[in-house]
Amino acid sequence: MAKQEDSFKNVISHAKEYGYIFASSEIYDGLSAVYDYGQNGAELKKNIKEYWWKSMVQLHQNIVGIDAAILMHPTTWKASGHVDAFNDPLIDNKDSKKRYRADVLVEDYAEKINQKAQKEIEKAKKRFGDAFDEEQFVATNPRVQRYKAEEKEILERLAKSLTEENLADVKALIEELGIACPESGSKNWTDVKQFNLMFGTKLGASADSATDLYLRPETAQGIFVNFANVQKTGRMKIPFGIAQIGKAFRNEIVARQFIFRQREFEQMEMQFFVRPGEELSWFEKWKETRQKWHASLGLGDEKYRFHDHEKLAHYANAATDIEFDFPFGFKELEGIHSRTDFDLKAHEEHSGKKLRFYDPEMGENYVPYVIETSIGLDRMFLAVFSASLQEEDLGDGKSRTVLKLPAVLAPTKAAILPLLKKDGLPELAQEIVEELKWDFRVQYDEKDAVGRRYRRQDAAGTPLCITVDHDSLEDKTVTVRYRDTMEQKRVPISELASIIDQEVNFKYWLKKA
Amino acid sequence: MAKQEDSFKNVISHAKEYGYIFASSEIYDGLSAVYDYGQNGAELKKNIKEYWWKSMVQLHQNIVGIDAAILMHPTTWKASGHVDAFNDPLIDNKDSKKRYRADVLVEDYAEKINQKAQKEIEKAKKRFGDAFDEEQFVATNPRVQRYKAEEKEILERLAKSLTEENLADVKALIEELGIACPESGSKNWTDVKQFNLMFGTKLGASADSATDLYLRPETAQGIFVNFANVQKTGRMKIPFGIAQIGKAFRNEIVARQFIFRQREFEQMEMQFFVRPGEELSWFEKWKETRQKWHASLGLGDEKYRFHDHEKLAHYANAATDIEFDFPFGFKELEGIHSRTDFDLKAHEEHSGKKLRFYDPEMGENYVPYVIETSIGLDRMFLAVFSASLQEEDLGDGKSRTVLKLPAVLAPTKAAILPLLKKDGLPELAQEIVEELKWDFRVQYDEKDAVGRRYRRQDAAGTPLCITVDHDSLEDKTVTVRYRDTMEQKRVPISELASIIDQEVNFKYWLKKA
Repeated sequence: MAKQEDSFKNVISHAKEYGYIFASSEIYDGLSAVYDYGQNGAELKKNIKEYWWKSMVQLHQNIVGIDAAILMHPTTWKASGHVDAFNDPLIDNKDSKKRYRADVLVEDYAEKINQKAQKEIEKAKKRFGDAFDEEQFVATNPRVQRYKAEEKEILERLAKSLTEENLADVKALIEELGIACPESGSKNWTDVKQFNLMFGTKLGASADSATDLYLRPETAQGIFVNFANVQKTGRMKIPFGIAQIGKAFRNEIVARQFIFRQREFEQMEMQFFVRPGEELSWFEKWKETRQKWHASLGLGDEKYRFHDHEKLAHYANAATDIEFDFPFGFKELEGIHSRTDFDLKAHEEHSGKKLRFYDPEMGENYVPYVIETSIGLDRMFLAVFSASLQEEDLGDGKSRTVLKLPAVLAPTKAAILPLLKKDGLPELAQEIVEELKWDFRVQYDEKDAVGRRYRRQDAAGTPLCITVDHDSLEDKTVTVRYRDTMEQKRVPISELASIIDQEVNFKYWLKKA
Repeated sequence: MAKQEDSFKNVISHAKEYGYIFASSEIYDGLSAVYDYGQNGAELKKNIKEYWWKSMVQLHQNIVGIDAAILMHPTTWKASGHVDAFNDPLIDNKDSKKRYRADVLVEDYAEKINQKAQKEIEKAKKRFGDAFDEEQFVATNPRVQRYKAEEKEILERLAKSLTEENLADVKALIEELGIACPESGSKNWTDVKQFNLMFGTKLGASADSATDLYLRPETAQGIFVNFANVQKTGRMKIPFGIAQIGKAFRNEIVARQFIFRQREFEQMEMQFFVRPGEELSWFEKWKETRQKWHASLGLGDEKYRFHDHEKLAHYANAATDIEFDFPFGFKELEGIHSRTDFDLKAHEEHSGKKLRFYDPEMGENYVPYVIETSIGLDRMFLAVFSASLQEEDLGDGKSRTVLKLPAVLAPTKAAILPLLKKDGLPELAQEIVEELKWDFRVQYDEKDAVGRRYRRQDAAGTPLCITVDHDSLEDKTVTVRYRDTMEQKRVPISELASIIDQEVNFKYWLKKA
């Protein structure tokens, strides 16, 4: 655990030091759970977007993209259920005046009981060594059994109370368990109240004529309300998809884990419209497609796992998460949901407009079913960044920090380094920059010894270093150094563009997906 | 005027019909002054962004990009002056309950007087024919002189009252001029009040602990607050620039002219930090650079003009607008401002942090001066779209609608059309799609006669059509048709990728800039 925390802290500080992520408005001591992307972060984020967009929109003839506004007609959020049900149950401690998510207080309490059970298991493991049969021990040890039962009972009661919106019982549960405020130790609680997570704002000048608006809490609804316009003007036929990348906002009470859970974040969503009855095979198809996309980046297959939802949201008939091994453990990176016809039907009801497709093969009009793939762009950023950041042992007590970003996503594709700051080497290096810059984002760097520059580019994630030396002036060749292997080879300057292209072109990466 | 209005209406309906722009939440009858970009609009917008970003960040070694959050620490807007001074003077009519911008009411009144003078000039022009000397007529005709004087007097008084924040006098002016509510004809006005244009929202759960936030009204401040972080971690040396593309929000009272003035809009801004005293030569340099960028797209040089500000904002010591000939006349498309050290100094004062640069050549620490280039992305979209939409006379009473988008910006680069839906032509066309899609966004289209498909792609803005016919099966050649000239030529399938690349690659276009 301590090691995990260290590695996470290291990710955060490296992200700042190399211009990837800064706290928002840092000179004003930051804005909680909001972050800015720096000069390298903006490029990495942009490249992730492009990698997703190309895979969805450019490679699929039957997927198109849209870019809907953040502000939408407020009835949208009535129809989607967000006005009524996008809530967190909150409770205040009267002494500390601190506010908590009531469900999280209970879950944390249950987790502590689970940890007691784990401790018993660990103890027994040590005692019995290789002979230890964990499954049997758990099934028969009375203490572990008691802990497990207690944890289960608490979580089931919490789930039941929340489902039935019985907030009084959530409070009763907190009191019965004797949960105290982590800050003050006091058990003096207010009632539990629902708090809507949407950010509100007002459109218009006067208080009485103003319209209450929300900052969208998800991008999906922008796709659903545009379904008919896109289908008709784009002459789309079922099955087809609409993709979108954009900002969404959630007024989270407990926002944490760096850019993993922000109040302002970005989503990459694709809603795929299919014939009713065919949704589950499309669900499987999209699970597979998305998994391949992730695998193509080469972060390591062991970093991913599927987590199928046992309890489904009211609108879904199948759902899975692609979880990633973040510095703080496996957490949701992407959701794939079979949303049925819930959203389009809700918008039909609230708008009075028909959101149907006339299927010429079936000779029938229907509300399409929907498979959604929804990935957090900031989470994807964190996944790529944290998995790429490595401390590499070079032997002899030496090591290097290297950010092994997939080259297709790297902010700077190549650094051009004159070996010395004289003899015309800077001029030749600059000439190479001027030639390459039309096709790639490249960087000129002349400061410090070349070894130090290599290390700096390693840590910044630049996949290639190109070094210009005295021989270069004679034979028009340079040294190319590869970040990951540190291998070097001598190549003609005239071949540089194609060498870089082989490493970084979207096409070669996406062909693996 | 009527023709102008028709052409503007035509732009709006074409934008909808071809999937470029939809009213936001249209199924709920829209949200005023907010728009969604459809399947073609999203691509055009994305390509405009890319064209700007590449020209700024990829081609300049001393410009880097960032991506700051929309939500910022509220003190940011205190420092920038937006909390105190980002206001519109509003007035309500007590009878109609309608609200107006007081300054716009007065300006509209002055404009009517100006129109009277114009009418006199037109009459005289007709009377005197070729012999008419307009300048002399204006200078000597007493009626025209009176109108001009009256208009000038009104506008000067308005400007003075606004500068002095004398809102009582703005109201007095409205009453003295006898301006009536356009809706009710009533002259029963409330006092004039300042209304802040920022959208507000609240961060946090409880009313008493919530923080008042704003949706950023401009992206520039996101750059200024990150100045020190970017300069240090990016090891930037003056002169250098920080570029950013992002959303901004203004609660405009009168938002109109389609996507020209929206409540939610997107900006492409670059702040260039220079030595104090060198700002005016950099200002000229950036005027020239930006003008070349616009010219490179080939929309026609006559569509642009510079409008230098005579009256400067309090933070500027030079400012110009690049105006574009929109369907409703010349209006601001991009602003280039010499902002002095106003913003960085203000943030120094409000944050207590030093925002300085140590200039090794000068051996001196200073707050840099700033040249800003700021272009409205949605306005650029409207400029490109409206200038490209043409009704072309083909002779013999025939015409075609063609959207002559710069090929580098076109959503679909090529349409692949089998001449007939049989004999293996669709299969070969699909094979070509599968080959080309890795490098370009291409579209397969088999419906309707080929002539009709050409017209459809013309209207959608696709620069190339590639037609597969029976000969293609034999000799592996196809017909390429160019949208703008309607010329056709026969080429080998193997050369298609390089033919398309020549037309659409950013590199060739940017080299003209």
